[in-house]
Amino acid sequence: MKKIKIEDYIASVPDFPKKGILFRDVTSALEDGEVFNYMIEEFAEYAKKVKANVIAGPEARGFIFGSALAYKLNLGFVPFRKPNKLPRETISVTYDLEYGTDTLSVHKDSLKKGDKVLIVDDLLATGGTALAAAELVEKLGAEVAGFAFVINLKNLPGEEKIKKYDKFFLVEYEE
Amino acid sequence: MKKIKIEDYIASVPDFPKKGILFRDVTSALEDGEVFNYMIEEFAEYAKKVKANVIAGPEARGFIFGSALAYKLNLGFVPFRKPNKLPRETISVTYDLEYGTDTLSVHKDSLKKGDKVLIVDDLLATGGTALAAAELVEKLGAEVAGFAFVINLKNLPGEEKIKKYDKFFLVEYEE
Repeated sequence: MKKIKIEDYIASVPDFPKKGILFRDVTSALEDGEVFNYMIEEFAEYAKKVKANVIAGPEARGFIFGSALAYKLNLGFVPFRKPNKLPRETISVTYDLEYGTDTLSVHKDSLKKGDKVLIVDDLLATGGTALAAAELVEKLGAEVAGFAFVINLKNLPGEEKIKKYDKFFLVEYEE
Repeated sequence: MKKIKIEDYIASVPDFPKKGILFRDVTSALEDGEVFNYMIEEFAEYAKKVKANVIAGPEARGFIFGSALAYKLNLGFVPFRKPNKLPRETISVTYDLEYGTDTLSVHKDSLKKGDKVLIVDDLLATGGTALAAAELVEKLGAEVAGFAFVINLKNLPGEEKIKKYDKFFLVEYEE
């Protein structure tokens, strides 16, 4: 497989969603079939290494990378959603944001004891969503096999927050 | 390929998200690797038939089916998003809901003249989101190759609303 430099396909947009934030935008990468394919192949190697048997991803960009990976590996995809989106019995984890809180939910019957879950998302920043996702997995008696992110923002505390878990990044930014 | 009866994996949840609505829930289908794979294979046959060269899907469940399909076909995936989620220059379409309005946006550089776009989502109901998605495609000078949905709710006006486009459903419900 030809090595692709993912960074070349990530746009850095200043002051989005608010002043002072440099937003790393993965849309150009996933809109290029060859680049999107390459990212999923890289994730698949990692998923096999950590022996994941379920792929999960938080709403909404985690759905994009997680579901393609699940398809590739012939595994199921478990969506972790914002509140009031999943119709059956759920469990939830609420976590702090800079201002206020956010909540992530999953159907109670989505995971079971013995499942080894790979959690996929586009970006690791403060790590709040990632840690909440890990807590959902463990609350259902399953195990976090690892995390796969397209991007790690190393100047933010995400990596520290999920330090007890295995993780994989395609691209890391110092700031 | 063994034929799978998708209906058997769709939960029907009464009174969600509000009283009187029978919610058709696809999570059980996509959480089963074999069933998810089957759905994407069926979509892929349709995508080839209509000669799509780009896959698009609206936030959030459209991401799940659209991105897996794009991966399968080695095509790019274009996300159609809620307002203020895409960081670069966008175009938008606002459409009516039962109460209020909703808006769908796409990056201006995501599609180009000559692109044949397959729009993927889990469910066709009133058709508001579907029609808005088609309008985004056409505003950017591209062509709607067709629509692929897991579910069509035939008692709602979605099919009528997008009648000028080709479409494909895995499951249809009379009510």
